[in-house]
Amino acid sequence: MQTVGILGGGQLARMLALAGAPLGLRFLVVDSAIEACASQVAPLVRADWRDFDALADFARRIDVATFDFENVPAETAQWLAGRTRVFPNPGALAVSQDRLAEKLLFRDVGLGTPAFATVDSRADLEAAINTVGLPCVLKTRRLGYDGKGQRVLRSRADADSAWQLLGSSPLILEAFIPFTREVSVIGVRSRSGEFRHYPLTRNWHVDGILSVSLAPAPDATALEHAAIAHARAIAERLDYVGAFALELFDVDGQLLGNEIAPRVHNSGHWTIEGAVCSQFENHLRAVLDLPLGDTSARGVSVMLNWVGALPEAAAILREAGAHWHDYGKDSRAGRKVGHATVCADEDATLRLRLESVGQALGREWQVAPAIEALTQ
Amino acid sequence: MQTVGILGGGQLARMLALAGAPLGLRFLVVDSAIEACASQVAPLVRADWRDFDALADFARRIDVATFDFENVPAETAQWLAGRTRVFPNPGALAVSQDRLAEKLLFRDVGLGTPAFATVDSRADLEAAINTVGLPCVLKTRRLGYDGKGQRVLRSRADADSAWQLLGSSPLILEAFIPFTREVSVIGVRSRSGEFRHYPLTRNWHVDGILSVSLAPAPDATALEHAAIAHARAIAERLDYVGAFALELFDVDGQLLGNEIAPRVHNSGHWTIEGAVCSQFENHLRAVLDLPLGDTSARGVSVMLNWVGALPEAAAILREAGAHWHDYGKDSRAGRKVGHATVCADEDATLRLRLESVGQALGREWQVAPAIEALTQ
Repeated sequence: MQTVGILGGGQLARMLALAGAPLGLRFLVVDSAIEACASQVAPLVRADWRDFDALADFARRIDVATFDFENVPAETAQWLAGRTRVFPNPGALAVSQDRLAEKLLFRDVGLGTPAFATVDSRADLEAAINTVGLPCVLKTRRLGYDGKGQRVLRSRADADSAWQLLGSSPLILEAFIPFTREVSVIGVRSRSGEFRHYPLTRNWHVDGILSVSLAPAPDATALEHAAIAHARAIAERLDYVGAFALELFDVDGQLLGNEIAPRVHNSGHWTIEGAVCSQFENHLRAVLDLPLGDTSARGVSVMLNWVGALPEAAAILREAGAHWHDYGKDSRAGRKVGHATVCADEDATLRLRLESVGQALGREWQVAPAIEALTQ
Repeated sequence: MQTVGILGGGQLARMLALAGAPLGLRFLVVDSAIEACASQVAPLVRADWRDFDALADFARRIDVATFDFENVPAETAQWLAGRTRVFPNPGALAVSQDRLAEKLLFRDVGLGTPAFATVDSRADLEAAINTVGLPCVLKTRRLGYDGKGQRVLRSRADADSAWQLLGSSPLILEAFIPFTREVSVIGVRSRSGEFRHYPLTRNWHVDGILSVSLAPAPDATALEHAAIAHARAIAERLDYVGAFALELFDVDGQLLGNEIAPRVHNSGHWTIEGAVCSQFENHLRAVLDLPLGDTSARGVSVMLNWVGALPEAAAILREAGAHWHDYGKDSRAGRKVGHATVCADEDATLRLRLESVGQALGREWQVAPAIEALTQ
């Protein structure tokens, strides 16, 4: 019986542990928070990323380590890799932790990106605005997620306040992309190099946080081939092992790379019920060098994220084809506390189910974009 | 956040806990064995069924109690019901623990049974053979499962050895039924009386232990209506709350009641991937009085039981639509240690997948009956 160690004890670790139990796996989670929600389903080592005594003990108790959280310090990942198998490898993690390295990789594999420039001083920022143009987005190169660590600049007058907020970190200025839609590919690559991908997923964000995913993305066949080729090239370039997300902008039929997430990803949560083998199970298969599972969609699915607090469960539980996921967390503004996935065999049925759920929850605003995309 | 207590810590408790986590539930399992496999996914109270101090503590820590194991002593269930909510109710449990009470209930709701007679003495046995006829099966009235506590009598000469083996318990002699096929219905009834059922499942046993289930059972529409009506009548008569299995013999198109299992059941394991909402999730919804989930099948599924030891996982992991379930138990003759479910959208695809799996595992004997049933 093998034990998988997970760095970070949030909902991703929780869903990995739930997916791995039927494979006969055991789990051990490291998190500094006693209330880490994965600890409800797997044993917890309470430690921070610099507690090398605790991490040494953790390494001894596991067969392989992986991540719930991509911002584990690179040196911790590197240190751990000297003691146990770590997937994805620390180098791949480091690239995805740095928006500049990420963009250089995209270019290397022939994937376009929004115009960008690095910013390390106030003067750099002025020069970068000249290069990149307005509107644009100033972002920290590291530690950003869910819209944190970034600021939109609509005019030169916004530069001062953005600099004051973010100027203490290495930054990157990116062109603000008037995208047609946001899509992502969840890819998975195993230790022996087997590569699979889920169908392209369409995503909608609200306040920088994923709100809704629809999969397979409608009318995406023209994009899908290119998106998957890029995902595969990136995985091979990084010798990546595990599941990952490649987030892309579709700008009038042209794909631009936004970012990669070196882990199972929120835009792949629909795969639990909406695909034959979920991203969670496939991530575990990949890091254990087992054959990868079937990534085909079962019908069509919409994932609705619950941010801040859970709505009433009953409207989801009552709806055929709808599935509830409560992460066992306390409510807090901006925190992902759960999601629901609504599945159906056909678009028309899914639309009806989304209308019913949206109405019952008073969340018509949340289901509307997916309903519209399913109607076109 | 509610905590569900489970009496018994085997694979059923394990799969209940895995199904309940996304509902935001916590679990607490009671079992006398430290190695109880559910303890890998939920906290364990180690206690036997007469340890009322431990059970009182257990009752204080949970919101509702249910069963992984139907042979919890009736007095323990009754005692617990004085301290917390217990579903199914101890009366329903008591009926299903006694083959005589079970058969009388079947008759009450108009469901035929094999001919039977109670046997409390050696003389009773002779009289019972005269009434029931040969061949017949002598069974303990209580504590039988997976073919344990029973003996087939093919001639009067078998009576002595059967009596010597089983005569110390209250017994029942049942006619040996030359059935056309064995089928089961998984029903589920909630605290508020909502009733749902999964499609009829066809089952094959080997040495008294379930080997294979196929769902939905092919060519069963004529039987299904009656089977479900009986399941529903039994649930209502018992004021039953939770999931249960009604096992039936199909004798040339006529249904006879075999037994009821007052819990989630091995012949419903296919519902994890093969139905919209699994028997495990629906059992939890029922005992928590939540709306019941959709029991429709997603395509067609075959469950293969692993008894004694697990075969090589790779043949299952490699097959599209096949799912692996390792219960985290040590190997032991006659012990259920895992199962696999092979799903497909169509019969023809499922047949091919079963052939491939059977061949790769050298288990053609196990998949053959389901392939034959899918071919007719």
